[in-house]
Amino acid sequence: MDIRIIPFASAVQPEEVTGKTIVVIDVLRATSVIITALENGAKQIYPVLSVEEAEELAGKFATGTYLLCGERDTQKIEGFDLGNSPLEFRQDKVAGKTLIITTSNGTKALDACRDSEKVYIGAFLNARAVAEKVKEKKEGVLVCSGTAGRFSLDDGLCAAMIIEELAKSVPVHPDDLGLALIKVWQSVNGNLQKLLKDSFHLNYLLKKGFNADVDYCLQKNSTSVVPVFSGIEIILS
Amino acid sequence: MDIRIIPFASAVQPEEVTGKTIVVIDVLRATSVIITALENGAKQIYPVLSVEEAEELAGKFATGTYLLCGERDTQKIEGFDLGNSPLEFRQDKVAGKTLIITTSNGTKALDACRDSEKVYIGAFLNARAVAEKVKEKKEGVLVCSGTAGRFSLDDGLCAAMIIEELAKSVPVHPDDLGLALIKVWQSVNGNLQKLLKDSFHLNYLLKKGFNADVDYCLQKNSTSVVPVFSGIEIILS
Repeated sequence: MDIRIIPFASAVQPEEVTGKTIVVIDVLRATSVIITALENGAKQIYPVLSVEEAEELAGKFATGTYLLCGERDTQKIEGFDLGNSPLEFRQDKVAGKTLIITTSNGTKALDACRDSEKVYIGAFLNARAVAEKVKEKKEGVLVCSGTAGRFSLDDGLCAAMIIEELAKSVPVHPDDLGLALIKVWQSVNGNLQKLLKDSFHLNYLLKKGFNADVDYCLQKNSTSVVPVFSGIEIILS
Repeated sequence: MDIRIIPFASAVQPEEVTGKTIVVIDVLRATSVIITALENGAKQIYPVLSVEEAEELAGKFATGTYLLCGERDTQKIEGFDLGNSPLEFRQDKVAGKTLIITTSNGTKALDACRDSEKVYIGAFLNARAVAEKVKEKKEGVLVCSGTAGRFSLDDGLCAAMIIEELAKSVPVHPDDLGLALIKVWQSVNGNLQKLLKDSFHLNYLLKKGFNADVDYCLQKNSTSVVPVFSGIEIILS
């Protein structure tokens, strides 16, 4: 399987993703949130780019059937029901609900892949299950969302973990960024705490007090849920 | 020193490089060529984006005082004096001459940095000397040219080597991509042949028969020449 890694959302070129099988990764925290929400029974999730778009879309659903979710600069958006902490997306909150979500990086990466053939949602939580879904493909593109137009190591290492999981069942041919990230991943045997101790976005979240979120998002293979994005909404695959 | 790595030329955002100190890296082969040409006495080098632009600019110089140089898909451009092989840029060819050069990736990266405060030209050949030039700065941006809109591991490892050289004299704070690349670099102690054996662009050049170029470009610290790009031409700094 030929595997390409896109380092951050704004580096996605349409011709690189159109018609392809994609995995969008935003470990801290958007894709970890989406996986958790669907695991806990959310009906469907609409990722949108702006607060205005989120509020406009909400107008199409009956009161009590949807939740407005998302963050700006890590904090819950004013007037929204939930922020971007996966720990908020409990069964008693989200089961049966439609979620409308806007985040700083993850929803941008999803938006850039609207014309892809198939877009799966990946994180450490479901890395093995994502690899199972895409392993029959001839090629795959792993889109790291990054942070504000920069590569984020947590997303890159998740890409490396997915490649490692794929390599257990098919021959893999990663691009140069993939080769580098696998080397990093293997250097301390997937010890995320050690690998990420100096990384920017993780430390920013810790500084803002989101320690429990970080611990949660760095769990590996805790679920077999693999969300899929139709270009409009995200549901269970 | 805060250090940012841009993974490939088309990922450069103007606000990330304007007014900043930049090192443009295109190990295979544009920046290795530029360093070699100036080391061998070239007077100045004009990097341009297109063959047409190169020919138009040539019209402004007297016959015999300039050389048209560059490649498309690794091969010398038809009617040009030199291609993109550093071994062609010998003293007897380039000394005292103005060079006009257009390449697939390196000249694009240079063009993207026209409004930067200072743009140095880096490669393995001059990594230590480049680090000497920029070490007093509070921040630096290392622009990896990449190959056709993709990250190229040779450029990334050169960035890692420059960071390692910097770290010998100042405290360095690399971004997440820098952290990853340093880890890769250290994993086999800077053994480039081992690190690059599966990388795309290097193997493409080997397939095209440029083995001697590859061996030449992977030499470390063979010169103290550090070219600088004014936004128009490149000269010795």
